[in-house]
Amino acid sequence: MNEAYRRLMERVREIGCLQSIGALLDWDQETQMPREGVTVRARQSALMAGLAHERLTDPQLRRLLDEADAGSDPVAETNLRETRRVVERAVKLPNKLVRRIAETSSKAKEVWADARARSDFNAFAPMLGTLIDLKREVADRIGYETEPYDALMDEYEPGMRAAVVETIFNQLRDGIAALLPPLMEATRKPDPSILRRRFPEDRQRAVCRRLAESIGFDFRAGRLDVSTHPFCTTIGGAGDVRITTRYNESFLPSALFGVLHEAGHALYEQGLPREHVFTPAGEAVSLGIHESQSRLWENFVGRSRWFWEHHYESLQQTFPESLGDVSLDAFHAAVNTVTPSLIRVEADELTYNLHIVLRFEIERSLIRGTLRVEDVPAAWNEGMEKTLGIRPERDAEGCLQDIHWSMGAFGYFPTYALGNLYAAQFFAQARKEIPDLPQRIAENDHAPLREWLREKIHRHGQRHRAAELVERVTGKPLSTEPFLRYVREKFSDIYGL
Amino acid sequence: MNEAYRRLMERVREIGCLQSIGALLDWDQETQMPREGVTVRARQSALMAGLAHERLTDPQLRRLLDEADAGSDPVAETNLRETRRVVERAVKLPNKLVRRIAETSSKAKEVWADARARSDFNAFAPMLGTLIDLKREVADRIGYETEPYDALMDEYEPGMRAAVVETIFNQLRDGIAALLPPLMEATRKPDPSILRRRFPEDRQRAVCRRLAESIGFDFRAGRLDVSTHPFCTTIGGAGDVRITTRYNESFLPSALFGVLHEAGHALYEQGLPREHVFTPAGEAVSLGIHESQSRLWENFVGRSRWFWEHHYESLQQTFPESLGDVSLDAFHAAVNTVTPSLIRVEADELTYNLHIVLRFEIERSLIRGTLRVEDVPAAWNEGMEKTLGIRPERDAEGCLQDIHWSMGAFGYFPTYALGNLYAAQFFAQARKEIPDLPQRIAENDHAPLREWLREKIHRHGQRHRAAELVERVTGKPLSTEPFLRYVREKFSDIYGL
Repeated sequence: MNEAYRRLMERVREIGCLQSIGALLDWDQETQMPREGVTVRARQSALMAGLAHERLTDPQLRRLLDEADAGSDPVAETNLRETRRVVERAVKLPNKLVRRIAETSSKAKEVWADARARSDFNAFAPMLGTLIDLKREVADRIGYETEPYDALMDEYEPGMRAAVVETIFNQLRDGIAALLPPLMEATRKPDPSILRRRFPEDRQRAVCRRLAESIGFDFRAGRLDVSTHPFCTTIGGAGDVRITTRYNESFLPSALFGVLHEAGHALYEQGLPREHVFTPAGEAVSLGIHESQSRLWENFVGRSRWFWEHHYESLQQTFPESLGDVSLDAFHAAVNTVTPSLIRVEADELTYNLHIVLRFEIERSLIRGTLRVEDVPAAWNEGMEKTLGIRPERDAEGCLQDIHWSMGAFGYFPTYALGNLYAAQFFAQARKEIPDLPQRIAENDHAPLREWLREKIHRHGQRHRAAELVERVTGKPLSTEPFLRYVREKFSDIYGL
Repeated sequence: MNEAYRRLMERVREIGCLQSIGALLDWDQETQMPREGVTVRARQSALMAGLAHERLTDPQLRRLLDEADAGSDPVAETNLRETRRVVERAVKLPNKLVRRIAETSSKAKEVWADARARSDFNAFAPMLGTLIDLKREVADRIGYETEPYDALMDEYEPGMRAAVVETIFNQLRDGIAALLPPLMEATRKPDPSILRRRFPEDRQRAVCRRLAESIGFDFRAGRLDVSTHPFCTTIGGAGDVRITTRYNESFLPSALFGVLHEAGHALYEQGLPREHVFTPAGEAVSLGIHESQSRLWENFVGRSRWFWEHHYESLQQTFPESLGDVSLDAFHAAVNTVTPSLIRVEADELTYNLHIVLRFEIERSLIRGTLRVEDVPAAWNEGMEKTLGIRPERDAEGCLQDIHWSMGAFGYFPTYALGNLYAAQFFAQARKEIPDLPQRIAENDHAPLREWLREKIHRHGQRHRAAELVERVTGKPLSTEPFLRYVREKFSDIYGL
């Protein structure tokens, strides 16, 4: 490491620190801020984002990058490689374009919310068109080998390519398509109505806190709050990671699995090396790898029978009126009900992926220019019918349901399904390396799995990119096989196939 | 207004915006942040403070100041005058000195907390000595006409002079000294023990919220939270003002009057003109004027019999076990008990000022160099004995009780007593101009007083400095007379003199 590297890292840490303050502004806005704070908050957020971008594209930073030498230190190597990647991306985008996208998506979010409320796609279409044009310009400026979508996806899942996603998603869709009909026709079926009884919010709060603690969420280094849309955010490195949820008194899974999901994200953040805070060596690999951590705890652990062997009795005691007459098996089956449905965020573990496959195809075509904006509702509805056998009656339940496109987030959706695949592959490996893992989970001892994840994934920060990490941890490249095997076994068991 | 003025104001607003983000970092640290967030939070706070100071002392800003012309616009005049004042002060202090003071007081706060816990003044003395030396250097660099204390006080109460404070405080002390013995010897005495019964926290919370709302604290533009030390802070201009309190289940006045006090501060902030946010025209005049607003609502309104004519019945209903047998008069007398006591923050409305007079004398002598650090405990204890007739047995209850000196805040204490005097003078004027004010308060109609304060004080931001403001609002310069008259009348009435 030379002096230029050290000076570079000082600047990188300052940029990270500015971004973390931006995260606090956002968290506060979603959870604490009084209503009338919104005007000033917009200025505060814009100022912090502007300062961070200004520093990221400062010519002096590029000079330091050219002169910096990591020597043979692997941490410094990681920091230098990733800083170079982010800076090279940032400097290709003129400040004017960055600001234009921020402004447009800020307006577009309002237009989208309004259009969704009235289920009026046409009201959103012009804005969507503008955003696609802007993001195509981004892709052109960033550059790509095969297609513009790659340049956009790279922001969320560095190194991933649309052609690879296509192959993987086709396998995934075919695998799920083969499993779905037998499940739908099974005679033994879960009864999900038991989850729609009454579950008072104050008691849900206590349960959620207990569950988060049980998997290892550290409340000395984190918080759990309420927000309209649940999220996990990191305010102060591994020492201050905050999750949120929402409580639905007549649908228990919403908060229950929502908290396990966000706590899974948080365990990743709390497991990152504190000494490398605000540098790539102390940051998560990608959105897909991040999602693998949340899905692993939410589904592979949280929706397993093992998990509830320990937790179900106390859950029953917490809600005796609603769960007193429900057996552990009935509860476990209910939280694993498979039913094609319209809304992604409410979808089950299996069909969820089909939503993602469809979105990937649509947005890829939009960015390629092979699908016109005005044809999105038709493409969506036909796609839903073809893959899930159901058709939205209103765009609000169809192509208008998600906020992502209005934020200009194209290339983001695939990470949700990739996360499920990474999770399955990691979990299968963990089961191999921790022979008594089911028993440990059933005894509420989550330390072995948590420590395994920390050792294999968390502590490395961005040392390895996603594809490399998966190979290093599991000995094999990313594949759909562990996921498909997992769902086949799990659902055959529950549905008695 | 010329172009230079407009560019200057852009920068001034950015500095204000950075400082407001710093305020959020502090608020979050006191009310929300998980314990282990503290290391990163220190970095975040330092970064924001550093950025603000960097911008405030930027030579380009000074060039703009020289070129800027406010024309004949009174708002622009205010902004230019006050920006000039703040910048001229800031540039006189080398960055190194500012950083040294920040570092030293950061350490000193820990040393003080530890010394107070062990009641060991000697452990704090060297740090105090260093801070006094540093603040004397500040005073020398800022410059002063008569004595260095003036330069320090100017930071909190611009334009005020130690010689003026001395004259005022002597009158104040003499006036209080004349009133105190008859009160102590009165045969009719309040019974404060009724306030030390049991008052469950959850019910106190509801009451506090109700009281804050009743005087006009706007929860759409503010919050009420819990912190170790109560405070009011402005996060997003008049649209986001946050107050805190602490609940003592066996001492009702702590939260009750604490919240009225902080809500009084908040009404000032919520009443500042939103269009001038982050510029002097949208900011409070001084700490003394700020304190006048909190003391006015806490004491002149909140401890008046009128106020409880409306609120007492519901308070009794909230705490029937503890207040069911207590009459309105007994309650009103109890919250107005006068007893010399050791701890300033727990002192009554009258003797509180004697604490301030003593601290003013001690710190003025320290800065002048006529009192040595090692002689502070003796000076304190003798001063307490002389003015209040009681003597601390331990420094923890004496000269170590307050955090201010460890923060390097010399010249701050006088604003607490000045606030009481300003409050009395404003309130006397309000009573003249709103003839049915007592009746309005008794009917829980606080709009007339609130609107009067907004019209006369809040909406002007820093248009007039404190001395000028007092004269404009009341027609007379600051005087102890309204305060002394108020306490004479009030306490003679309660104590039956």
